[in-house]
Amino acid sequence: MFEARLVQGELLKKILEAIRELVTEANFEVSSSGLSLQAMDSSHVSLVALSLRSDGFEHFRTDRAFSMGMNLNSMSKMLRCAGRDDIITMKAEETADTVSFLFESPTQDRVSEFELKLMDISSENLGIPETEYAASVRMPAPEFQRICRDLSTIGDTVEMSVTKDGIRFATAGDIGNASVICRQNTAVDRSDDQTVIDMNEPVALTFALRYLNSFTKATGLASAVLPVIVEYRIAEMGYVRYYLAPKIEDEEMDN
Amino acid sequence: MFEARLVQGELLKKILEAIRELVTEANFEVSSSGLSLQAMDSSHVSLVALSLRSDGFEHFRTDRAFSMGMNLNSMSKMLRCAGRDDIITMKAEETADTVSFLFESPTQDRVSEFELKLMDISSENLGIPETEYAASVRMPAPEFQRICRDLSTIGDTVEMSVTKDGIRFATAGDIGNASVICRQNTAVDRSDDQTVIDMNEPVALTFALRYLNSFTKATGLASAVLPVIVEYRIAEMGYVRYYLAPKIEDEEMDN
Amino acid sequence: MFEARLVQGELLKKILEAIRELVTEANFEVSSSGLSLQAMDSSHVSLVALSLRSDGFEHFRTDRAFSMGMNLNSMSKMLRCAGRDDIITMKAEETADTVSFLFESPTQDRVSEFELKLMDISSENLGIPETEYAASVRMPAPEFQRICRDLSTIGDTVEMSVTKDGIRFATAGDIGNASVICRQNTAVDRSDDQTVIDMNEPVALTFALRYLNSFTKATGLASAVLPVIVEYRIAEMGYVRYYLAPKIEDEEMDN
Repeated sequence: MFEARLVQGELLKKILEAIRELVTEANFEVSSSGLSLQAMDSSHVSLVALSLRSDGFEHFRTDRAFSMGMNLNSMSKMLRCAGRDDIITMKAEETADTVSFLFESPTQDRVSEFELKLMDISSENLGIPETEYAASVRMPAPEFQRICRDLSTIGDTVEMSVTKDGIRFATAGDIGNASVICRQNTAVDRSDDQTVIDMNEPVALTFALRYLNSFTKATGLASAVLPVIVEYRIAEMGYVRYYLAPKIEDEEMDN
Repeated sequence: MFEARLVQGELLKKILEAIRELVTEANFEVSSSGLSLQAMDSSHVSLVALSLRSDGFEHFRTDRAFSMGMNLNSMSKMLRCAGRDDIITMKAEETADTVSFLFESPTQDRVSEFELKLMDISSENLGIPETEYAASVRMPAPEFQRICRDLSTIGDTVEMSVTKDGIRFATAGDIGNASVICRQNTAVDRSDDQTVIDMNEPVALTFALRYLNSFTKATGLASAVLPVIVEYRIAEMGYVRYYLAPKIEDEEMDN
Repeated sequence: MFEARLVQGELLKKILEAIRELVTEANFEVSSSGLSLQAMDSSHVSLVALSLRSDGFEHFRTDRAFSMGMNLNSMSKMLRCAGRDDIITMKAEETADTVSFLFESPTQDRVSEFELKLMDISSENLGIPETEYAASVRMPAPEFQRICRDLSTIGDTVEMSVTKDGIRFATAGDIGNASVICRQNTAVDRSDDQTVIDMNEPVALTFALRYLNSFTKATGLASAVLPVIVEYRIAEMGYVRYYLAPKIEDEEMDN
């Protein structure tokens, strides 16, 4: 018997919206350490990894580790029926072919139960490499989202280059070209509003804006991103990470 | 000469939006007791009844009873041109083939007159049965709207079952199933926010969610519904009622 | 070298949105007196004239007068990437084939540069006639926008008639007819909310609502219009004017 109760149910809704843009079916792994998910997008270009630690839940219990294959669009349909302030409890028997989502209104006047059919999904061993990164940039998530969205109206790819002074995003397209420079900024009070650059050596990599725009669907979740690997931290609980291989010039010619 | 002046003109706009989802043409009946309308939806499955008492208008006058056939979409086009705070006056000669809508801004700086062509609509004697109901549930209108909308993302029909503790809405579909239970709640101050169950015997009936979702277009009008017959009360003035025949299992098989 | 810096960058965004509904390509004329543009819509029925005086910019400099042909949709794509509070600077070399838009965030943490390719557009000598007008009406821009939008749900053309008491907008269509009368109103405090009629002789002209609805896209810019020529004043800086030839009855019959 698995049971996990999340008082801030809204969080689970946001996490799902952040993931299902890239992935439509995935195995949620349940274990005593928490709930996690790793999946590649359908074109196998990017990878998303979700980790929610058990201690971030109000209540988390599982008798053994197992996995639940879910259609994320169906799961999203159900979670969208939870109210903003609802407490969400997930429940499943290890051997059953459904998972239950229980939504309780704060006053307990309304209790909803949604039962989602599970599915068999062949899981891949994704092997995320533990790399030392040449540069890490933390910046406000809405800022990163806006830059990606803005530049994608001009071009298809973005070159991100990191120097010790700032990060530069540049693109070019038929109507002209564009660049945005964000400078290191640690003067503001809230750490979420800061732009912090931590660099071993200058980096310049090119990415497809289409994928970055999908990643930024996680903006509602958290308030800091580190473009290159894009990580959205989920307060006190875990993270959603997006890994995207940079574009190699030869590959682009094959497209 | 018929003339009816409604200071809260916004009300008439909302009433029309609540009705025209189901009915596109209808006869408005004018009499000394007020303005009323009864009509079935085009597939003859549900019935809507509107009643606005003459004393709810600031001014109401008619020389005799008569009926005005209107295309509700055309009427809606005109009413949408009234401002939020406009005073609306309806005017018609018994023998004329048009009805006038006069919109006056509160400051009288702007006066608009819209003249709608009337049409001949064969009226049916609808004969709404005066039944004793086995159960009556009053609940907040937005709550009822949300439940109908949520469940319609999962299934096509809803079973409503009333017990003395609460009302349960249940549906099932391809991706799984769902149920929502609302408990009796008379502790809150505003009577509009209460859920009140008045039951002679337990009831369980199944309805098509498609129709219930059309009824809930009246949510903006008033704040309490009684699912089974759905009645929206219009403060100090009347009501919009929706009658829907429950689904019989045999009928469903014929669909 | 041309350079113009506008602290209230939002203004340039609104101006562009107001113009590009009617015109997709246009020559911006740069001279020591400021920035201006004149263009006809593609069907040559209406004319738009923009004038932004150099003294309205925080900084305005040009070595000589020249013109820059721009695709307004491409320009709009770029300007939409400027933040609400960004300072916008336009820069161009007289001989170059691009114009630069520089967006600076108020805190200078983010600096974006967008380079738009210029194009050759054959300019027409539009020769706007300097006429004495029989009547001039100043009224709140949102009011004018609403009337044009409302009446266009009923009919295709609007007859505007000006008397000393007010201005009357009338239309007719399949479902009926409509008229709106706005009375002179100079009692309100803010001059933007006033309706002021200045008439030499009564005027009644008929216009296509389709064009008037395009003009009213400029509503966000300023707060007074003078229907007949429609002029939106840009505070302290200039104007956008729309000229539309009235419909002659014979022409209508040819449609």
